[in-house]
Order: sequence, then C-alpha cells, then structure tokens
Amino acid sequence: MKPRVYLDYNATAPLRFEAREAMISAMDVVGNPSSVHAEGRTAKGLLERARGELATALGADGADIVFTSGATEAASLALAGRGFHGGDIEHDAVAAWVQVDLPVSRNGQVSVSDPAKSTLQLANSETGIVQDLPDGLAVSDMTQAFGKLPVAFNWSGATLALSSAHKLGGPKGIGALIVKRGTDVAAQMLGGGQEMGRRAGTENVIGAAGYAAAATAAMRDLTDGVWDRVANLRDLLEETLAAEAKGTIFVGKGAKRLPNTLCLATAGWKGETQVMQMDLAGYAISAGSACSSGKVRASRVLKAMGYEDEVAAGAIRVSMGPETTEQDVMGFAEAWLTQLGKHRARAA
Amino acid sequence: MKPRVYLDYNATAPLRFEAREAMISAMDVVGNPSSVHAEGRTAKGLLERARGELATALGADGADIVFTSGATEAASLALAGRGFHGGDIEHDAVAAWVQVDLPVSRNGQVSVSDPAKSTLQLANSETGIVQDLPDGLAVSDMTQAFGKLPVAFNWSGATLALSSAHKLGGPKGIGALIVKRGTDVAAQMLGGGQEMGRRAGTENVIGAAGYAAAATAAMRDLTDGVWDRVANLRDLLEETLAAEAKGTIFVGKGAKRLPNTLCLATAGWKGETQVMQMDLAGYAISAGSACSSGKVRASRVLKAMGYEDEVAAGAIRVSMGPETTEQDVMGFAEAWLTQLGKHRARAA
Repeated sequence: MKPRVYLDYNATAPLRFEAREAMISAMDVVGNPSSVHAEGRTAKGLLERARGELATALGADGADIVFTSGATEAASLALAGRGFHGGDIEHDAVAAWVQVDLPVSRNGQVSVSDPAKSTLQLANSETGIVQDLPDGLAVSDMTQAFGKLPVAFNWSGATLALSSAHKLGGPKGIGALIVKRGTDVAAQMLGGGQEMGRRAGTENVIGAAGYAAAATAAMRDLTDGVWDRVANLRDLLEETLAAEAKGTIFVGKGAKRLPNTLCLATAGWKGETQVMQMDLAGYAISAGSACSSGKVRASRVLKAMGYEDEVAAGAIRVSMGPETTEQDVMGFAEAWLTQLGKHRARAA
Repeated sequence: MKPRVYLDYNATAPLRFEAREAMISAMDVVGNPSSVHAEGRTAKGLLERARGELATALGADGADIVFTSGATEAASLALAGRGFHGGDIEHDAVAAWVQVDLPVSRNGQVSVSDPAKSTLQLANSETGIVQDLPDGLAVSDMTQAFGKLPVAFNWSGATLALSSAHKLGGPKGIGALIVKRGTDVAAQMLGGGQEMGRRAGTENVIGAAGYAAAATAAMRDLTDGVWDRVANLRDLLEETLAAEAKGTIFVGKGAKRLPNTLCLATAGWKGETQVMQMDLAGYAISAGSACSSGKVRASRVLKAMGYEDEVAAGAIRVSMGPETTEQDVMGFAEAWLTQLGKHRARAA
C-alpha cells in the first residue's frame, strides 16, 4: 500500500520526537505541583522548567506564561466579555468573543483603528497570510505563527498572545496565554490558586513538558533553515499547479505568509470534494479550518477578503511541515491535477 | 537512601501502567479529530473509543461524557452562574460557584433541602467521608470517589457529575463532566463545535486515551478487591496510631468513607508542620486539599464539621493507593509517633 502523505500541519502537527521523549520522562513524576512535599516540589520544578523553556522559545522571557487547555481557552481568557474588535479572518475561537467589524483587504490585511481594544492574528490558518501587528495591540492569536516564523512575543507589540502546543509539534490539550508582565487577567476557572491565580486546576504536567520540548525543537528548526526548505517546496508546488490550473486562484501568492501554507481556490469544484478525492489518493489536506467537525461551508476567511461564495467554497489548504519531501509535493501535484482534469471533463 | 513512601493519593495518584501504555500508543496518532481525512478519522476513532471506555468504567453508559481539562473546568461548566446550594465541605473549585449554605453535621453529612438546585460531593478529599446522594441531585463532585468506590453514575441519581483523570491514575490536565442524556449544558469555551457543542477546543487525545485506560484499570482493581486490602491497611494504621495518640482525633472513624483515606487532627500541632516533618522522614502526606499551592490555613472542611480552629489547623491526611504496603504504613506510624513524642516533649 502506498504510504499516506500528511499535508495538514496547520490542522495539527505530528508529535515531535523531542516532545514524546519529554512526555514519557514526565510520566515518572508522581506529585501534584501544589503539594509541598518532595514529590510535589519535583512536579512543580518540572512544570516551572517547562514554563521557562517555553517562554524562551516563544521570545517571551519576562512575560507570564499562563498554561491553558489550548488556544481556544486562551482566547476565552483573553477576550471574553471585553467587546474587542476583530476582522472576519480570525479563528472561530477568537471571533466568538469579538465585534467582527475591522475591514479586511483583498490581500487579507486587517486595518486596526484602536489597537488597545482589538485583536489581530499574526498568521492566518487557511491562507498563511501574515499581518503587521500595530503597536499596543491588545491581543494577538499567534497560534499558527509560533514555530513556523521567527516570532518573539516580546518584540510583537502585543499585550496578550495565544498559543497552542499541537500546532508546533506538542500534544493536543495544552496551550498558553502569554501575558505582558503586570497585565490584569481575570481568572475564569476558579478554585485553586494555580497559574498565579489566573487559571485554577491541577496543571497538565506531562503536556507542559511536551509543549516546551516541542517549542524548543521548533525554534531550532527555524534557526537551522528547515522552514526555508519547506517554503521552497511550497513555492515549487504552487508553480507546478499554477502552470496547469489556469482557472485556479492562488490566495496570498506574493504576500508575506507562512512558509508552509498553500491556499488555492477553484470556483465550481467544492473544497470538501477535493479533500475527499485527495484523501482517497493518499493525501491529507483540508478545506478551511479543521476545528469545526463536520461543518461544510464556504471559507469565511476568503469571503472576508472579498472572494465570491463560489470561489470561497472551492478553497483547499495544503500545509506542510519539516517532514515533507519533494516527492510528497510532486505526488500531490500529480494527484490533484489528475482530479482537476476529471473535474473539468465532468463540467464540460 | 531510604526509598520515599507516597501516601498522598488523594492529591494525585501515580500514573498507572495501563494509562502510560495507552498514552504512548496514542502519541503515534497524527490527525486532528475534527479533520475529515483518514488521519483525522483515526484520531476521532481513538477519542471516541476512549469516551466509550470511560463511560463504561464510570457506570455512565448512555450518558454524555464531555471531556474537559480537569474537574475544575467541569465544575465551572456545571455550576457557574447557576447559584446552586452546597455545603462548606465541597472542594474549592465547586465552592467557588455555589451558595455555601447547606448544613454540615459533626460526622460530615450534608443536608440537602432542594436537590435540583444543589451540589453534593460523593466523597470528601480530606476526610474520605461518603455522602448519600439524594435523588434528583443537580450536580455531584465524584472526583475522589471514582476509582476507589464501586460508583456508577447511572445509579447515583445525579444529573451531572465531575471527574478527574489524575485522581484515579490517569494524567493531569484532563477530566470530564458527565451529563445525563438530554440535559442542557451551556458551553463556556466557544469556537469549534467539539464535544457536541458543549466545549470547544481541539481534544486532548493522548490524555483521553490515558484517562480511559486508567479508569478501566481502576475498576478492575475494585473488582479484584485491591481497595479492600487498602482499607485494611488504613484501619491498621488508624488502630496503631490511636493506641498511642490519645489526644488525637480520628476524623470519620466509623463513618462510611473512602477505603484509602485517614484524616487525623492533633490540636496544637500544626498540620503543615507534620507534613514537613513526615516529608523529611520520607513520607508524602498532606494537610488539607493539595490544590491551593502555598496556602496554609485551618481545614475548612473540619471547621464546617464543627471542629475548633485549633483542631482543624492540626489536621493531616494520609491517603493510600494500590501500591501501598504494610511496611509503608507501619513505617509511617513509627515516624509519626516519634514526631508526636517530640512534639509532646516540646509542648510539656
């Protein structure tokens, strides 16, 4: 059987080896980080080392890292009840809490008028398009950018940032709200005094160890130029497809975007159909965000950028990772172009 | 060096072998459960098998299992904004959301007047005392009872129940709200449509696998009589200490309580001092709940039962597990009685 090719890193990245090892090692730590005895102090030490390592990897030394169950919880902690402004290209977990009223340009750029009362993602999950963050921005969703771009929270100008472990090769079920030191964040989960009173609940020690190890490995990949190689593969795929698929729109082409993300839209050929056809051919890709199980609809992000419904409904996302090879990419191009030909024949 | 003896299972239980194996196996699953491709379906399948296995282990077949980041989040999901009634022996994560106005008797029993608007724990973390749950109870915190008592949610009479993986040998950072089928639960985290719309966020797949495996192993221990053996050790310890420590109160003695929990209070000898002395002697125990790091105070639970401050401040909890041996228990008795003698000499 032909091996599967995973090209859906923006939905979730495979667990990195370093995260796996750190998690297995953390499984031997017995105590509750809140216990004062030796076993508790050992668990607390592991947790705090992970917190420090993560802060360094995310360029957030001196900022507070509040561990959460993921970026969705971090979004709620940062945004719920605050009535901030955002554009309609934000992730559902962010859009749920904001006034979606900031203008989005055709090239995917959001105009922020009041940074102190706005949220703006650093990179879009569907198109990969990167924003210039205004100084004094209240909240930035950096979930897709961390680990793929050389991002440092401390240099971003944002007061709060959202991050998720599993997007950079850590485990699912843990994320963080990064907080500029001295910023008030009202806890939503109450009970114990964990996370400096900002988030009650016994800490996910194994997850934190994996998160920190993954972030450190991801940063090392960045330094080593791994993502430059990925960007070259993405560009090769884009050129290969563009040469044949004359009616297809390559969203974000030429824009500053994530190195691993290719978004292409073909009017009249539904994204979910393409995803199924590619799945059968052995390639895992997605249409829109993966986070809403079973929902089939036109990409909200592309519609916000001014694309027509028919185009937005025909969008797919191919997102690569450090393990992706040229063979993977060229194999995908062949499979997709074959299906495009069949689609055209049916439509003719 | 003398090996450490861990007697703080109610704070957190060591990760069970079965949970460890299930988690390591789940690390190889690549996809996001919300993705529609083969990798996503595999992850979804693993998650749903874990959900079903957990439901069976908790006697909740046919009920809904909503995975959360722990019992603290489950408490918030069940109780926030509802103004329910509770007694002052509930865990902080529960007490935070309720009107603490239900009477508590000297033997730790709570009187519930309006079950449909009340919450009542099944077993207390500090004393181990078990409650008779009234029919039609809105919410029960079963965190300490699951895995130590033969509890079935479906027979409990409660509409909602809280559970945490790490109290029964699963990983920290995952828990569940158990929901009688057909009950409305308003989501607090928004974004994706996960957990049937009740809790957004990419699911903790590795954690869920470990949780289910731990719960299954815990239920097998119950069937195998492991906790009867633990109860005998607890009783042996209680008798051994009671024979010497005439001024010490053994809270819950003779009451229906968890098989593994011994709560003893010695007026004038602070619980946190005892914890430190026992820690130095190689034994991990606790004073009060472990969940509030660094807080040193008289046990709220004992005060609610009518004990004086001086008694409540002198309480410790010894909580055992399947790995606990007679040697552990007798070693602890010797170490604690030695310190009691020194305390008496100083106080004399």
